[in-house]
Amino acid sequence: MTDAALPSLVDAMLESYRADERGHHINKKFLPSRDEIIRCVQLFLQLFYPGYYGRQDLTDDNVRYHVGCLLSELRGALAKQIELSLCHQAESCRDCTNTCAGEAKRVTDALLTKLPEIRANLLRDVQAAFDGDPAATSLDEVILAYPGLLAVTVYRVAHELYVMRVPLMPRIMSEWAHTNTGADIHPGAEIGASFFIDHATGIVVGETSVLGANVKLYQGVTLGAISHPKDERGRVIRGTKRHPTVEPGATLYANATVLGGQTVVGEGSVVGGGVFMTKSVPPGARVAMKPPELSVRGVTEAPRDVDFEI
Amino acid sequence: MTDAALPSLVDAMLESYRADERGHHINKKFLPSRDEIIRCVQLFLQLFYPGYYGRQDLTDDNVRYHVGCLLSELRGALAKQIELSLCHQAESCRDCTNTCAGEAKRVTDALLTKLPEIRANLLRDVQAAFDGDPAATSLDEVILAYPGLLAVTVYRVAHELYVMRVPLMPRIMSEWAHTNTGADIHPGAEIGASFFIDHATGIVVGETSVLGANVKLYQGVTLGAISHPKDERGRVIRGTKRHPTVEPGATLYANATVLGGQTVVGEGSVVGGGVFMTKSVPPGARVAMKPPELSVRGVTEAPRDVDFEI
Amino acid sequence: MTDAALPSLVDAMLESYRADERGHHINKKFLPSRDEIIRCVQLFLQLFYPGYYGRQDLTDDNVRYHVGCLLSELRGALAKQIELSLCHQAESCRDCTNTCAGEAKRVTDALLTKLPEIRANLLRDVQAAFDGDPAATSLDEVILAYPGLLAVTVYRVAHELYVMRVPLMPRIMSEWAHTNTGADIHPGAEIGASFFIDHATGIVVGETSVLGANVKLYQGVTLGAISHPKDERGRVIRGTKRHPTVEPGATLYANATVLGGQTVVGEGSVVGGGVFMTKSVPPGARVAMKPPELSVRGVTEAPRDVDFEI
Repeated sequence: MTDAALPSLVDAMLESYRADERGHHINKKFLPSRDEIIRCVQLFLQLFYPGYYGRQDLTDDNVRYHVGCLLSELRGALAKQIELSLCHQAESCRDCTNTCAGEAKRVTDALLTKLPEIRANLLRDVQAAFDGDPAATSLDEVILAYPGLLAVTVYRVAHELYVMRVPLMPRIMSEWAHTNTGADIHPGAEIGASFFIDHATGIVVGETSVLGANVKLYQGVTLGAISHPKDERGRVIRGTKRHPTVEPGATLYANATVLGGQTVVGEGSVVGGGVFMTKSVPPGARVAMKPPELSVRGVTEAPRDVDFEI
Repeated sequence: MTDAALPSLVDAMLESYRADERGHHINKKFLPSRDEIIRCVQLFLQLFYPGYYGRQDLTDDNVRYHVGCLLSELRGALAKQIELSLCHQAESCRDCTNTCAGEAKRVTDALLTKLPEIRANLLRDVQAAFDGDPAATSLDEVILAYPGLLAVTVYRVAHELYVMRVPLMPRIMSEWAHTNTGADIHPGAEIGASFFIDHATGIVVGETSVLGANVKLYQGVTLGAISHPKDERGRVIRGTKRHPTVEPGATLYANATVLGGQTVVGEGSVVGGGVFMTKSVPPGARVAMKPPELSVRGVTEAPRDVDFEI
Repeated sequence: MTDAALPSLVDAMLESYRADERGHHINKKFLPSRDEIIRCVQLFLQLFYPGYYGRQDLTDDNVRYHVGCLLSELRGALAKQIELSLCHQAESCRDCTNTCAGEAKRVTDALLTKLPEIRANLLRDVQAAFDGDPAATSLDEVILAYPGLLAVTVYRVAHELYVMRVPLMPRIMSEWAHTNTGADIHPGAEIGASFFIDHATGIVVGETSVLGANVKLYQGVTLGAISHPKDERGRVIRGTKRHPTVEPGATLYANATVLGGQTVVGEGSVVGGGVFMTKSVPPGARVAMKPPELSVRGVTEAPRDVDFEI
């Protein structure tokens, strides 16, 4: 390639942007910053689990200053990103900046005031992980090395922002958690207390899922939609309940897939590994795949079932 | 441990390297750099989605300089890593450096010239994600927070390098995408337009897979090989078609596993969650697992099927 | 929010910490550092695969200095983190610092002395990956781009620390590998030589699993516990064998789930994709899901089985 080729490559890319309004953010003013939102997430983690995330040498003498710094920094960063998210949504309106800035301050205020309550809920999630997993040796291990807890922690904050109708930002937070834990919990889901996710990889909890207290999900569990209803123009309809309800105390084992907005997993039910279901089951149900078939090399007998139970 | 122990530990490691030619890259000259290749990926992302990745304040006034800088930086970094990849492959040949450098420039030229075309394809992938998922609120959200789109974006670039026979580098790119998204799409796969991957975690698309336009894959779907044919020395044979063909418009739900180079999922087919199949199905097929069995605590009746449909 | 609100937010968080001993590490002295432990992992990788991780221009002339630096740095960092992990466990004891420091030096010594032996095992894992996957083009590709190898590498080190009863640190290492590869291999598992994990995402190998030589696991495979036995207070019992045994040469395909401490997958067995099993199968077994059902749009015939085989 000669150096002379560069200008024509540049021209071609600029033409690519000019030709289609999609996929670029040129001549537009407002977009939240992924990096800044992730910084907010890190500050939340330091506030929820002081000494485990961030600075380690905390004592009664210094913790007030530490927490003061964290909250002060978080308040500013959070308000800015919420404002950008709101302005981005309202790009066309003239004087949205003032409106959005005020609303962002209000939302930031409301969220920070709820932090102790959110933290109390998180401690119940920590305890649920320890109580539910014989491999856990201490609460410290749960906080330092359980990806499910990280996913739930980010979810509980993102959900508050979702409920307060902040656009984009909650999803950027949840996608960061997804990348780091393998669990994709939509901020719109409603999840009760003492929630335990083990191993986390591959878990998907859809936007309109509703989960009661003391639910346990293992790796690979999907709470998803069956098929998407479409409007008269053939586009998917948004805003309906498309994902399941899981009642309190239910357990879903590895790679179980439960689909549908009308599907209810009854209280205390156990759904076995690999199950695929789209209809409700009553409280106390046990749902299992048909047993797999076994054949043994060198033996001509017909395949027979492998016993199993859950 | 006394300090005196260090020299003998060092000797033991050096002996470990001397004893086996495998697993070290000592006294060899050429190896591409993972860090530099990831830097190239970041530059591609900034070029494909300006304003979403990298600098945010782009306008008609500054975008030409921005794109010029990106392309200039990318051109150099890309040519260098392609050259190292080619030289690495040809380590034994005497004057490969000159040959590889020339070939690297040619490949770089060809790839950068195709960027607008690749980008046009990516916009169709963005649109397919928005149209296919009721939880998506805007194209912005798809670009900023959909791991499937990130995986497809990296794939479309890596595939071009694979087709132009650049070794190692495409796989290092796809493995970076795998780590960050959970989707492992081999650069050798052939994938049609408007490809939508939802949630992404656990998806595997093997090297010789062929996918038509408008295919949808959900989390955990595998397009894999059945078992690997071996040569007379018992080593697996490389280079045959080992992975499935998925015709246009087919949808594969969560954790479906489709294996085999002769296996075809017919046009518009729907493969249900958790299905394991190794044989072809015709256009318009619906494939579903056998219904799971239900029993309810305290009720002595025999297990019965749970109704389901897809 | 007025600036005056900050002090009351701080007070509320401090009260949250005071109210519950869980979830914070304030007024406590010892906790290992995740960042430092990850630094140790990076140093191990540079020692195991010199030239592939870290510095690239290694020759017979400089490799001794390079390895000397790595080992010297690793020895210090490792001893410190092991000491902190031991002290953390023994927080209540008075003079644990001296005891823990001595024990940490002993463990560090023992582990570093074993490095060449561990590395020899890792080369067999590298070879197993290349031999087992027709898509692999070279050992270089396996080392640079196979997440399964990264997971196994970290496992083999973490397992040594686990066996030497170092708390917390092995799990922090394995969780780092989990985040980066999608494979969650507990450091307590016992895994034989020439272990190959393909694609890696979603793999879970539980704490008390035992795997023979030449075992192959594909993405999404779980070796897990059935249900957790509880003590009289309703808390799960720790320390029993809860996870399966997989005998030499067995292969488990994508998303197979095998549960239970008494469950044995016999030598050379093949477990098909998506299988869920909780009972043992003999050597040479082939276990497969029941075939899925097929119906074709516009045809009224009853669902029929899709042929499949593994």
